[in-house]
This record gives sequence, structure tokens and C-alpha cells, in this order.
Amino acid sequence: MIRFECDYGEGAHPRILERLAETNLFQTCGYGEDEYCENARRIIRTLCGDDSLLVQFLVGGTQANATVIAAALRPHQGVIAAQTGHINVHESGAIEATGHKVLPIASGDGKITAGQIHALCQAHWSDATREHMVQPAMVYLSQPTENGTLYLREELAAIRAVCDAFGLLLYVDGARLGYGLAAACNDVTLPELARLTDAFYIGGTKVGALFGEAVVIRNAALQKDFRYHIKQRGGMLAKGRLLGLQFETLLGEELYFSIAKRAVEQALRIRDAFLEKGFALRYDSPTNQQFPILPVRAVEALKRDYAFSHWEQVDEARAVLRFCTSWATEDAAVEALIRDVRRL
Amino acid sequence: MIRFECDYGEGAHPRILERLAETNLFQTCGYGEDEYCENARRIIRTLCGDDSLLVQFLVGGTQANATVIAAALRPHQGVIAAQTGHINVHESGAIEATGHKVLPIASGDGKITAGQIHALCQAHWSDATREHMVQPAMVYLSQPTENGTLYLREELAAIRAVCDAFGLLLYVDGARLGYGLAAACNDVTLPELARLTDAFYIGGTKVGALFGEAVVIRNAALQKDFRYHIKQRGGMLAKGRLLGLQFETLLGEELYFSIAKRAVEQALRIRDAFLEKGFALRYDSPTNQQFPILPVRAVEALKRDYAFSHWEQVDEARAVLRFCTSWATEDAAVEALIRDVRRL
Amino acid sequence: MIRFECDYGEGAHPRILERLAETNLFQTCGYGEDEYCENARRIIRTLCGDDSLLVQFLVGGTQANATVIAAALRPHQGVIAAQTGHINVHESGAIEATGHKVLPIASGDGKITAGQIHALCQAHWSDATREHMVQPAMVYLSQPTENGTLYLREELAAIRAVCDAFGLLLYVDGARLGYGLAAACNDVTLPELARLTDAFYIGGTKVGALFGEAVVIRNAALQKDFRYHIKQRGGMLAKGRLLGLQFETLLGEELYFSIAKRAVEQALRIRDAFLEKGFALRYDSPTNQQFPILPVRAVEALKRDYAFSHWEQVDEARAVLRFCTSWATEDAAVEALIRDVRRL
Amino acid sequence: MIRFECDYGEGAHPRILERLAETNLFQTCGYGEDEYCENARRIIRTLCGDDSLLVQFLVGGTQANATVIAAALRPHQGVIAAQTGHINVHESGAIEATGHKVLPIASGDGKITAGQIHALCQAHWSDATREHMVQPAMVYLSQPTENGTLYLREELAAIRAVCDAFGLLLYVDGARLGYGLAAACNDVTLPELARLTDAFYIGGTKVGALFGEAVVIRNAALQKDFRYHIKQRGGMLAKGRLLGLQFETLLGEELYFSIAKRAVEQALRIRDAFLEKGFALRYDSPTNQQFPILPVRAVEALKRDYAFSHWEQVDEARAVLRFCTSWATEDAAVEALIRDVRRL
Repeated sequence: MIRFECDYGEGAHPRILERLAETNLFQTCGYGEDEYCENARRIIRTLCGDDSLLVQFLVGGTQANATVIAAALRPHQGVIAAQTGHINVHESGAIEATGHKVLPIASGDGKITAGQIHALCQAHWSDATREHMVQPAMVYLSQPTENGTLYLREELAAIRAVCDAFGLLLYVDGARLGYGLAAACNDVTLPELARLTDAFYIGGTKVGALFGEAVVIRNAALQKDFRYHIKQRGGMLAKGRLLGLQFETLLGEELYFSIAKRAVEQALRIRDAFLEKGFALRYDSPTNQQFPILPVRAVEALKRDYAFSHWEQVDEARAVLRFCTSWATEDAAVEALIRDVRRL
Repeated sequence: MIRFECDYGEGAHPRILERLAETNLFQTCGYGEDEYCENARRIIRTLCGDDSLLVQFLVGGTQANATVIAAALRPHQGVIAAQTGHINVHESGAIEATGHKVLPIASGDGKITAGQIHALCQAHWSDATREHMVQPAMVYLSQPTENGTLYLREELAAIRAVCDAFGLLLYVDGARLGYGLAAACNDVTLPELARLTDAFYIGGTKVGALFGEAVVIRNAALQKDFRYHIKQRGGMLAKGRLLGLQFETLLGEELYFSIAKRAVEQALRIRDAFLEKGFALRYDSPTNQQFPILPVRAVEALKRDYAFSHWEQVDEARAVLRFCTSWATEDAAVEALIRDVRRL
Repeated sequence: MIRFECDYGEGAHPRILERLAETNLFQTCGYGEDEYCENARRIIRTLCGDDSLLVQFLVGGTQANATVIAAALRPHQGVIAAQTGHINVHESGAIEATGHKVLPIASGDGKITAGQIHALCQAHWSDATREHMVQPAMVYLSQPTENGTLYLREELAAIRAVCDAFGLLLYVDGARLGYGLAAACNDVTLPELARLTDAFYIGGTKVGALFGEAVVIRNAALQKDFRYHIKQRGGMLAKGRLLGLQFETLLGEELYFSIAKRAVEQALRIRDAFLEKGFALRYDSPTNQQFPILPVRAVEALKRDYAFSHWEQVDEARAVLRFCTSWATEDAAVEALIRDVRRL
Repeated sequence: MIRFECDYGEGAHPRILERLAETNLFQTCGYGEDEYCENARRIIRTLCGDDSLLVQFLVGGTQANATVIAAALRPHQGVIAAQTGHINVHESGAIEATGHKVLPIASGDGKITAGQIHALCQAHWSDATREHMVQPAMVYLSQPTENGTLYLREELAAIRAVCDAFGLLLYVDGARLGYGLAAACNDVTLPELARLTDAFYIGGTKVGALFGEAVVIRNAALQKDFRYHIKQRGGMLAKGRLLGLQFETLLGEELYFSIAKRAVEQALRIRDAFLEKGFALRYDSPTNQQFPILPVRAVEALKRDYAFSHWEQVDEARAVLRFCTSWATEDAAVEALIRDVRRL
């Protein structure tokens, strides 16, 4: 069985395991105040081109999202997200558990637009009974989205402008950020992300780390006391060094970018194979997730040797599948899949 | 500088790193449903002598505490704990953030008694205005306590009886459970813990793991849907295998017990050195944390070569210190400390 | 200016004020345990034909909804509601503030169907990753809905059957229940409501009281400790007698039904006037709220002498308006409006 | 049976009922934006001597406390209160239900001191692991306290100074504020309260109203969006006019002060009777609650004709009782009690 079902099926890039072994007996203080974390912070600030950024490391994405959002909002405020956004559908109500409503916006491909956000805020602020409704106070985006799509710089800048107009914070979930940065069409660099958002995170779990997400906060009000929030939400890792060391290894040596680039290239080869064979794609994804629409018979044929996700049923005859690549995907696996797609 | 300041200053027992490297490229499903987790669950159920136990792995202690307590209580209920209990003082309000009051009970050494719990519940249920107060519904204990002390089986059984009388759940925080199990006087075995509590956790972070706590739930109502709660509280590790593999390594090979035993022996040697020198101990701890009371001058002398915690000030002239040992403490370090204590 | 903008523009039915004055100096115990409350409870249990019902009085609807829902759900559970449901749009996130997600279902007229609820639950329980999503555990309906429409007994019974199939609680918000009970087509009587739901409330604020909602709970698990929840959510009125006395007055003397009946008759006369004039209705409401669709010019003409709500804009040329009647609406006001509608 | 058990045993001052009847059919808009509320706001701002104050009316004290505190604190922050403070013991965990820990300070008579608050904050901010603890961010006082005692201006000013030093908000619960203002020794006037606190409330429920508390907020950050919080916490009364009208009646006509003054005079006569008879007082209360310490036999004797609260048991032989007066207490009742005390 060759697996393309997710981007977290293996452990970590071997370089990380080496570094863990090398440093294992070094003694450090706990809770993310060690030298590995400090060094990883410096690297991230440099990559983002902003020395004033607060960088904190959390273990997982849901934890990062809930911690940032709860730290940022007052009780009566909510966070705008795509209907399909991770916080709206796949976090078991983690955001609501901190007391806040997710304000969903319809989306066809995982993205939402400045215009949609503007319309939602306009409707709120022009309503005489707005105090009976949740006040929109933050925008949550995923880059890339859950559907593999990307915001371009122009789109993100337009969203930032709406945020400024309505006093909204802008937060970007970068669980798969590496794969977005590696996309050929991407023009949202780390310095752009840092400049345009109030906070975002650089995902490690899905891009080569054992686990870990680096939260990057530009907004000074949100920086304040952020470590209390991490502790309160259960995200303060005793041996925080493990997080620092992983990001130091990934980003200090540019591994993060090279492994993401390779995974995206592999994904595009898979994509091309499906397109060449005449299959349509559900979303136009330039990143490591690909969503071909296949007839049921073809799905059954591929199932024998490959693991992948059944994304959604189009109708009785056709389904959308998801194929993911990652730092661990082998070229031989990609080639086998391409060969078998051609045979369908 | 020789460090005794905590039991999480290094990485993990080397055997864990070896296993991580060996298994790194194996592909598994995510979120704790892999074979390593399943095997670790089997081992823990066997060690506890109860096949009906639910075992789930979380990353850290605060996360484990908040997840179990929030899953167990209805909104109007609170959890009884020692004034000095970790949930009452060192979790940044994580329990309150889930909506529940911690009901503190005075404690001299980290332990609370069945009698104290009985009195608190008696007072609640006999009060005609009790509906204006938080209803006690759970007891939280730490084994060993934050002060290194241990509940004996008889004490725990008495607390269980009070819990049964008042409909309380009993939950034990075992962040340092290994060191408790290794204490010479300990008679609360894993099967006893599993039998007497509704839930407890076996701490990994402070006893040889990189991170990880194994939550063990006997109570069927609390077992139900527990994984939703883990996800909601941000504790569902994508690569859950990392947790399973660590507990499999620690418990399957009995490493957990042997490293804890050695750490306790080292701690007792340090304890004896202080006692022989005529220093009193703040708490009578049979585990890996020792709390000598030292004159300020002696503190200053030791500070030159050793790192330890300043626990509290007794008066201007004397302070309570904390020395911790762990799986990583070297005999040479213990011997150096003993030598220097004798010279004080 | 003649006002039809809401059903809470005046004080209370005069009979309530009389009773308040008569009983003002009687001394009672507080917090809803007085004889007026006890008598009102007896009356409600009798009207519902079930002596096992728990009846508690709260001050307002948002308070009642948040208290019942938070008391009923475990943290990982959510409540299904129409997209347009009061808890989803007009309570400033009160439900989310207790930690729970509202799971919205599309609705054209304020109602949702058993089929929609079944589909949502089916999708949840058949999803292998359901533990990453909020678990549906309750259905919230409004009777009448925010759009004036009514569930028929058959529809409610079908929803109850789905609830039973999926282990959902059923809760009905009866803010305007009186007007629903008074509708000619209504076949959901108080005993039916009590039998088919786990809990519902009989709205007082909008049907003749100064304030007050009577929460009626059949489900034994939800009955337990309910008064703690009331206190915790700030709903325990010190002089609870005020609530008991109002419901005793309204329901003991059948005022509730007679004033609602008259208001509905007035509303239907208004409805007929619009229909006769050729205006369509946005919703087919048999209750005290009517929603004619009017050209902008007609809106402007009516605005001069009447207060009403601008419900929504259909397009540039037409708007949906809302006209409400209540116990306090005078026949002369209704007749004036009808006359002016005919003149449009 | 003559009742001294609480100050909310009757309805409202008759003048309020008259005004309710007079205004019953006037139509107003809802939710506290009517002319009665506006007028009551003006009166309160004038009494406090500050036109910039935000005044909002809530139904009850627990609701007011939870709404203000939750609106003011960020998630990691807690509120300092006397161990005996209402929010710490008698609100069923309402504050914790909004996510915040109450940080209790020991108190002998219901009051806490600037020194105690300073010590708590000093301990927090000087602790290197403070991010693992709840951050103190607000001080909650009751004026008068639950024990009838009063803060003097000098004490309050000292507490304010500590608040300023540590960035704490100061909030005063004035459930019985009228009785405090009426005390002979009181030097904390309404303008002083408004100047020294960030927010406080003027209690109506226990001082002549049917219900209602007027929250007065000086702090601009806390003023912002406060009405959203009221709605979210279930405190937005549809017929908000009822609150405005009551405070307009009580404060516009100075009834509030005159009825409180009379109740305090009555309480002091009761107090003197106990003292003259040689009974000690548990607290030195200059307000409407009195706490004599009586031998069990005397308690039994008084029980035959009088209702009062059993406050606490001193020992087997003696108990502390609580006697309350209110606007409704009749002189004949006071005289009967005094006569019977003399006969004990």
C-alpha cells in the first residue's frame, strides 16, 4: 500500500532526529526559554524581516488557533472564517469552547474575499440592533487553504485594508505554510505575511517536524502576556527546547523550504497525470494537496494499491479524492501512481 | 554548574530516541489510533489489571488536567483540591478557563484528608442556600504531591469512600507517578490506582519521555466521547504515534520503573546528606524531590556550583530549597553535592 | 405615531399591576421558592397535564436559552438551530459564551425539518473523523418561529423521532408561545409540547407580563440541579415572587390565552388588508407577526403615521416589513392601519 | 412571625408601583434606550458629579458582577476578592463560568486592605514563573461588605493607589450601597465612589426596588461595547424601561437615601438593644445588617416570634445571628424585637 492520504503519516525529517540525539543530554531551562527556542526565534524574525515580532512555539494547530483567537478577542467578539475553515469544521468546537462564535462566510474553494468580509462587517455596523449580535473582530484565513488554494498578495492586501477599515485583526493559519511558500505562483513571502497580518503561524507538524507550530505575532497588544495564554490553554511544553530545536533545524538550514518545494513538485506531477488523463480537479491547487474528480470505477481501481482520502461525493458516479505529498513522499511512489493513473 | 532544579531539564531516555529513529519512516494513521498507541494501551491495561480501562495519551499535564476535569463536570460543579495543588496555583487558571471553580482545602504538606473532604461536602449539602454555591463534584489529588509526599493506600481508600458517599469523582494527577511508585513506603500500585480512582494519569514528561501523559479512565461515563474533548482542548497530537511509542518503550520494557527507582535512591542519598548535617526537611518526601531548610549562608555557598529551586523563605535567615533528581541525574553529580553539603 | 414595531412596547397587562400592588407588602422567602411561584408551577403542570415537570421562572429569553442549553450539553456538544434562529443571530453569542457551537441549518421561513436534522446527524455519525467535529446533541426550535410560522404536531413528532434516533434533546423557545397556541391552525397544545420536548419555555415578556419566561423541563437529567445553573447564569431573581405572581395571574385566569387570541385576530385583520390590496407576504404567518412585501413608496407613506420594523430589503424597489400586535394593541390602531393600507 | 431575615422579603416601595401603573401604557422602545432610562442615567451622572459616566441597568447582582468582570478581564486574568466576598462564595461559580479565577484574600470582617492586595500583587509580579499563575487584574470590593462593614474613604483611596501601581481595575459591588451611604460614619460619597473606582453598581433590589442594579462605569475601555456584554450574559431586559423608571423614582426623588437612612436607624436601635443587654456583635456594622452573638437559649426564645438568619455557630453554646432591616421594616416590628431582647 502506497500512502498519499495525509502529510503527517511518518515521523520527522531525519535531520531533526539527529539533532534531538545530539542535544539530548544538554540541560536547559524549561517552557520555551532555552537557547534553541531563542535561536529559532532569531531565525524566524530574520526570515520575516522584523525584529519586533513575538515568536512562540506551540505543539499543534488547534491549540495554536484557540490560543491566539482567545487571547485576541473580548467576550462579545467573533472571528470571521470561511465556512470550510479548519476552526469552523474540524476543531471540535475549540474556538466556541473559549467563548467565541465563528462567523462563517460561504466559500467555493476555501478562500474568502475582501468584499465578503466588507459586506459582513457593513451589515453588522449598520444594524441598529448590532449589540444583539456577535461583533466581528478578527479574520481567520488558512494559507494554503484546506483545499490547497492560495491567497495572492493582492488579495491579502485587500483583506488587510478591510480589516483596518473595520478594526479587525487578521490571523493566518499556516499549518501547511511551507507548501504555500513553495508554490510557483506564490507571492506572499514571510515578510509579507508578517507585515500584513497581526499574527500567523508557520506549521511544522505537516512540513517535516515531529510536531510544532511557530506562532508569529506582530500586533503589540496581542504580544502582551501571550505566554500566560499558552499556559492556560495547555500549550506550554515543559521541554520547550524540542520545539525550538525543530524549528532551528528546519528553518536555520532551509530544510523547510527545500522539502516543501520537492513535495509540491511531486504533487504537481500527480496533478498533471490526472489532467492528462482527462480528469477534472475540484480545486485549482498549486500546493501539496490535489483533488481530482474520478469515476467510481477508477476510485476502486486505485484503492487496491494506494491510500488517499475520499473528500466528497459529487454524485453517484463520481467522487472527489485528495492526494497529499509531503517531505517523506518518495519519487518511486509518485511514479507508480502516475503510471497507474495513466492505465485507468 | 550541576543542575538539580527540575526533572525535565534534558531530552528523553536514550532508548526512546533510538525507537523514534527506528520507526521514523513507518507510515501510520494519525491522532493516536496507530499500532504504537494500541500496544501502549494494552501494556497499561495489563499493568493496571483491568481490560475495561480507556487509555488516551496527551502531551502535557495541564492539558491532561483541564481535559479530564472539563469532560467530567457539569457547569455548576467544582473540583476539590489542596490549596497547593497544581491546578489551583500553577496552571494559569486553566481549570477556571473551562468554567469551573477549584475548591481549595488547606494543606501543610500537599496532601488533603478524607475528613477535610467530608467536612467540605457536608457543609455544602447541609446548607439550605447550597444552590448559590459551587457544587463539589470531583476530588483532585497529586500522587506524589507537589511537595513530594505520598498518599498511602489506606488514605486513598478513605478518600474514595467519601467520594462514594457524596457522589464525587476521584482524579489523580500522576505527573511524577513513577517516582511515587518507586518509593519504598508506597503501597498504591497501578492496579490500586485504577481501582480507587475514576481517572488518573501516568506522567511521562518528568519520568523519561520527551513529553506525554497517559490518561487512564475507569469511569464509563467519563470514557464516553473522551476523544472529542481531547480534540477540543487542543490535545489531539497529529502524530499520536510519538506518544504511543514513548509509553510502549517506557512501560513495555519496564524502563519507567527502573529509572524512577534510581532517581529516588539518588534523592534519598541527598536527603540523608542534609539530615546528617543537621538540616531539617520542610516535607517528609520519600520521592525524587527533597526540600531541605538551609541557612542563607549555606544557600549562597551551594549556589556557586549547583542549580536548584528556591521554594520559599522561612524567615530572614532560612530558606526552603528544592532538589530534584530524574532519570538523567548522574551519580557523580549526586556525590559532588553530598560532598559539598558535608562541607557546609 | 401608532406603533406596531414590537410586542414589548408597553408595560404589563393591568391585571398584573393590580396583583403586584395587592401583594406588595406580603413577606415571602426569596429566589423563587415562595407561594406565588409554587402556585404558578402547579397551574403550569396542570395545563401541561404532567405532574413530574420541573417549572422554573427566568427573567428573559436569552437567559432562558443559555441556561437550559448550557445545563444540558457536555462541552463537546452543540445545538442544532435554524440559521435564522434567535440563538444563532440575536443573542450576541450567548450560547457560544457558555462554550457551545450553534450548528445552523438553512431555513426559508424559520422552520427546519426532521429530514434536515436527520441528514446533519447522519453526516456526523458516519464520518470517521467525527471526533474532530462538534457533536450534535440538541435541537433548538422556536414556536412560533422568528418569522411567525408554526410547527404542526406532525412536524414536531417527526423531529422528536429523529431526536430519539440520534440521542438529541429537543428544546423549544416559546418567547411568543401564546400567539402560537392562539393560532387557528395550531395543533401543538401545551400537553403535546411537554410530551414531545425535553424542555420548552412559555414566554411572558412578549405576551402580557412585565417580564418573565417559565421554563418547563420534562427530562429528569436536565431537571437535576437546574437551580444551580439559574444562579450561575445570573438568572436567580431575589424577589422571585414577581415571576410567580405574573404567571399565576396570566395562566391561572387564562388571561394569557385570551390576550394572545385577540392579538392574533388583530394581526390577521392586518394581514388580510395587505393581501386584499395585492401585496404578497414574505412568510405565511398565522400568528401575531406579519411580514408584507411593499414597494418603497408605500413604505414611505406608512412611515408617516406608523412605527414598524424594516425586516429586509428584497431589491431596490421592495422591502419586507414586520408588523406586530400584542395584548396592548388597540382596535382603533388596527383599523386606522387597515384604512391606510387600503388607501396605498 | 416578624421577619428580619433579609432585605428583599417584600415587593417595592409603593411609589414605584404607582409610577409603574401611571406609565404602563406608554409605548417606548426596548432594551434600555427609552426615556426613563435616559433620565435615570442623567440623575445618576449628576449625583456622581461626572457627565462622562456610562450607566447601564441590570436586573440582579450576580448578573451585574459577572457581566462587569467578564467584560473587563482578558482570559488569563483573575479578580481579587475577600474570601467572604459574594463572588467567591455565593454566586454558584458565575465568575468562573466566564473563565476567570477569583483570587481570595483572608478577611475577618468582609474587608480587605491595600496592604493585602499589594502583597498578593507583589508576590505575583516578582515570581519568575508568574506566567504559570493567574494574573491579578481587578479588585472586587463590596460596600457595605457582606458583613455590614464599610470601607472609609482613606481605605478606598489606599486600595486605589495599589490598583494604580499594579494596573488593576477597581470594582465595587453596591448591592446594599444605599445602607452604606446612609451610615453615620460613611465618607465614601457617590462622587468619591465614581472617582475612585473603574466601575461600581448602585443596588436597587435590596433598597426599595422590585429589582435592578445600576452599573456605573468610569473607565473608558470598559465602557466600550458594554451593551454587547449585557446582551450576551442574558441581562438585556426587553422592557428596560422598568429599570429606568425604578431608578428614576428612587434617585430622582431621593427616596433611595431616605428609606436607607430609616432602615439604618432601625438597625442601630436593634444593635443597641443587643449591646445594652450585654451581647457582643460579631462585626461592627454601621449599616442595615446586625450580627449579635447569642447563647443558644436566647436564639430559641427569639425564634418563636421572629425570623432571622443563623449566620454561623461560634461554639456549641453560642451562635451568630443576622438581623436585617429594609425600607419595609415597620417601627412596631423593631420595637417588639427590642422589647423581647430586653426580656431575654
